[in-house]
Amino acid sequence: MLEPEQLSLNIPDTTKPRVVIIGGGFGGINLAKKLSGKDFQVVMFDKQNYHGFWPLLYQVATAGLEPDSIAEPLRKMFGADDYEDFHFRLVKVTGINPETRTVTTLIGDIAYDYLVIATGTKPNYFGNDQIKKFSFPLKQVPEALNLRSQILQCFEQANMTKDPAMRQELMNFVIVGGGPTGVELAGALAEMRSHVLPTDYPGLDFGQMNIILVEGMDRVLPPMSTEASEKTFKYLKELGVDMRLNTLVESYDGVLVTLKSGEQIRTNTLIWAAGVSGALIPGLPETSVERGRILVNDYNQVLGFDNIFAIGDIAFMKTPEFPKGHPGVAQPAIQQGKLLSKNLKRMLRREPLEPFKYKDKGSLAIIGRNRAVADLPGNMHFGGFFAWVIWLFVHVMALVGFRNKLVVLSNWIYKFFTYENGTRLIIRPFVRRGDRAKRKFIDKYAGD
Amino acid sequence: MLEPEQLSLNIPDTTKPRVVIIGGGFGGINLAKKLSGKDFQVVMFDKQNYHGFWPLLYQVATAGLEPDSIAEPLRKMFGADDYEDFHFRLVKVTGINPETRTVTTLIGDIAYDYLVIATGTKPNYFGNDQIKKFSFPLKQVPEALNLRSQILQCFEQANMTKDPAMRQELMNFVIVGGGPTGVELAGALAEMRSHVLPTDYPGLDFGQMNIILVEGMDRVLPPMSTEASEKTFKYLKELGVDMRLNTLVESYDGVLVTLKSGEQIRTNTLIWAAGVSGALIPGLPETSVERGRILVNDYNQVLGFDNIFAIGDIAFMKTPEFPKGHPGVAQPAIQQGKLLSKNLKRMLRREPLEPFKYKDKGSLAIIGRNRAVADLPGNMHFGGFFAWVIWLFVHVMALVGFRNKLVVLSNWIYKFFTYENGTRLIIRPFVRRGDRAKRKFIDKYAGD
Repeated sequence: MLEPEQLSLNIPDTTKPRVVIIGGGFGGINLAKKLSGKDFQVVMFDKQNYHGFWPLLYQVATAGLEPDSIAEPLRKMFGADDYEDFHFRLVKVTGINPETRTVTTLIGDIAYDYLVIATGTKPNYFGNDQIKKFSFPLKQVPEALNLRSQILQCFEQANMTKDPAMRQELMNFVIVGGGPTGVELAGALAEMRSHVLPTDYPGLDFGQMNIILVEGMDRVLPPMSTEASEKTFKYLKELGVDMRLNTLVESYDGVLVTLKSGEQIRTNTLIWAAGVSGALIPGLPETSVERGRILVNDYNQVLGFDNIFAIGDIAFMKTPEFPKGHPGVAQPAIQQGKLLSKNLKRMLRREPLEPFKYKDKGSLAIIGRNRAVADLPGNMHFGGFFAWVIWLFVHVMALVGFRNKLVVLSNWIYKFFTYENGTRLIIRPFVRRGDRAKRKFIDKYAGD
Repeated sequence: MLEPEQLSLNIPDTTKPRVVIIGGGFGGINLAKKLSGKDFQVVMFDKQNYHGFWPLLYQVATAGLEPDSIAEPLRKMFGADDYEDFHFRLVKVTGINPETRTVTTLIGDIAYDYLVIATGTKPNYFGNDQIKKFSFPLKQVPEALNLRSQILQCFEQANMTKDPAMRQELMNFVIVGGGPTGVELAGALAEMRSHVLPTDYPGLDFGQMNIILVEGMDRVLPPMSTEASEKTFKYLKELGVDMRLNTLVESYDGVLVTLKSGEQIRTNTLIWAAGVSGALIPGLPETSVERGRILVNDYNQVLGFDNIFAIGDIAFMKTPEFPKGHPGVAQPAIQQGKLLSKNLKRMLRREPLEPFKYKDKGSLAIIGRNRAVADLPGNMHFGGFFAWVIWLFVHVMALVGFRNKLVVLSNWIYKFFTYENGTRLIIRPFVRRGDRAKRKFIDKYAGD
C-alpha cells in the first residue's frame, strides 16, 4: 500500500460545475442519485467504501445479520454504467476552505463549485476519555463486529471460570442510552438470552445474565411519543431488561461502572449508545456551528455561504416546528438530499430555491423478536405484533439493493420461526482503542 | 476479559470414557456427531468457535460470500438439545502428554481416555520468514476478509496515483501455488476483472491488471488427473491468467517478488497458497511424526499408542494405494472421522476395529464463473459447464446447515445471472503480521 504523500485525488478536469459531497450516508446517496452526470460532476468522499443501513446495525452486533446484509458498496450503487461523471474516493477529508473554495483531504486538495457536508454524527462521550477508551460504541460495521465477538467471548469465558464474581461480570451487559439503538440492542440481547444462548452454553445459568439499560431521561425512546415510550418500557420489562431511568453514568474503568447515583455495577461490556455529536470538519467559521451541528437555512445552505450546504444529522435547521432541529434519523437526511439535488439544478438555471419541509413518515422501533412500537403521522400509535409487521416492511423495503432485501427478509423469517441466530462467529475485526492488553490476550489465545 | 490464569476448563467429571478432540474441522465434527453422549463424554477444543467450509473460503476473499455462508458456529452444530455431554472450549491446546494421558491447554490440563488429533494444517512458508511476514495466507476466515479488503484497497489506491509504476504494482496480483485454492482464486479474480471491477473503477484500465499464478510443478492442480490439469490450464489461459509453471519463489519484501529463475515482479499483493504442513502439537515422540504429519495405522491410531488417534490432514496413513498419504481434502477427513466414531464404540465393546478404506468420491475444482473440472471415480473426467453443475451441487449440498445452503445457492444464482459480487466491503479485520506501517496507514486514513 502507498503512503498518503504518494497518492493524489486524480479527479478529471471538467467544464461542468463540480459538486463535492462529503459522506455516503442517507443524505449523500440520495443527493448523488438524483444529480445526473449531465449537469454536474459529482465527487463523493467517505472513509468507508460502503453505505450502511444503520438502523439495522444492532443486528450485526447481536449475530442476526452479516455486514453485507446492511451495507452496500458505494461503487456498486454508483456504477459507471448508470452514473456518468461520478467519482468516489475512499479518503478522509481534513478541512474545508470556503475562501479558496477547496476541500483538503489527506492526499490533496480539490476545488468545488458546490460543497455538501453530509458527514453525519459520531459517538459523543461528553469529554469522558475513560469511557471512550473502554466502552463499545455501535456506529460502524467494524464496531458491530467487534461487539458481536465481545458478547460471545464473554460467554465463552464465563463458561471457563469457577469464580462466581468473575462469571457475573462477564454475564452483565450494560447499555448506556435508551434511544432506538439502546432499546433495540437490549431487546435483541434479551431474545438471545431466552432462545439461543442456553442451548449454546448449557453449563451456564442464564438467570444470571443481566441486561441493564441506563437512560438519563425519565423514559426510554425519548424522541418518540409517550405512548411508544410506555409500551417500550412494558415490553422490555417483560423481556427481563433491567431499566434505570433518570440515571447517568459517572465513570467506567473497563470493569466497574459507577452511576451518578453512586450505585456500582461490574461488567466487562459497556455499550455506549448515549449520544452523538456532529462529525464536524475544520474550516467553517464558529458562527456557523451550534451544539456541534452546522446551522443551515431552509435550503440547507450553511449560514453565511450560498454554495456550501449541510444535510442530514450534521445539519441544524431551526424551524418553528423543530426549534431544536429535525430528528436524527434517516428520513430528514433522505428528504434533504433529494430536495438539494433539485435545488442545485434550480441554482444552475437561476430559479428560486424550494425551502425544505419535513414530511414526517413516522417513527418505529423494534423490541425483541416480534414486538415493535410505531408512531405514525396523524397521531397514530401502535404497539405489538402489528407494529412489528410495519417495522419489518418499512425496513426491508428501505434497504438498498434487491439482494440485501432478500437476504434480510429470509434471515428474519428464518429467525422468526426457529429462534435461531445464524452468525455467531467470533471474528475480532479490531480491538478497542488503547486496549493493548486485550490484543495481547487474543494473540495468546488464537495466535500461531 | 479475563487472563488465562483466571480461567479453568470446567469440564464436568464423568464416569464415561472421555474423548478429547482437538480441532473442529471436517474430521472433528464428523467424529463428534456420531459419538453419542450415551457412551462417551466428548470434549472439543478449537481456537475458533466455528467450523469452516474451507473449499469456499476463496469466495470470501473475492467478495462473493460473507463468512457466515461458509462457517457454522460449533456450539450451534452441537447444541445441548441434540448433543448430550458434549463440551466445547474455545482455547488453544499447547501440549499432549501421553504418559499422564493429559492434554495441556492455555488454561489448564485435562485427562483423556481417548485423544483425537484433528488439527489439520497451517500454511508452510518453507522457513522463509520474509514471505511469512509480507504475504497473504488464505487458511482462515479473518485472513480471507483481510485479503478481500487488500484487493479492494489496491484498486482504491491505484485510482489515486498518477505514477504508472506504482499503479502497476497495485494492479499486479501474484498467487503462489497452483493447487485448488490458487486456481479457484485466480479464476475468481479474473472474473472480477471482466465483470465487476471495470464498472466500479471506470478510471482504471483493467488491461493493466495482471493475475500471475506461480506453480513449482509442471502443471496446475497437480493432485488431479492430467486431463483436469490440462483443461484447467486452458480455461485459466482463456480467462487471461498468466501462469508460470516449474517456477519457485525466492523472496518477497512486500513489493518485489523474486522468482528462482531471476525474474522479478512488483506487486503489493502476494497470496501464499503454495503449501501446508501439519498443525502439530508438542508432546508426541519424534518417531510418530514424518514430514510434519502424524504417522497412523489403518485404524488412525498414532504409531506407538492405542488410545491416541490422528484423523484428516494431520494424519499420515501409508497404504499401498496412497504411499504418500491420502489427499489433503475434505473427504478423507470426513470418512476417517465417521469410521473412528464406530471404532471407538467397538473399542468400548472390545470388538475388533475396522480398518480405514478411502472411498474416492472424486475431485472438483471451479475455474471462474461457469467452468469446472471434475475427476470422478471410474476414471471419468469432465470439464466445462457440466463439471460446474456437479461442483455447485456437491459443494452446496455439503455445506453444513440448511440456512447456509440457501444463502450460498441464492448468492451463486444471483451472481451467475448478474455478474455481480455483493460483498465488496472493505473491513480490515486485522493487519498482516509485522506490518505496522500498514496499521498506521489505515489509522491515518480512517481513524477518528
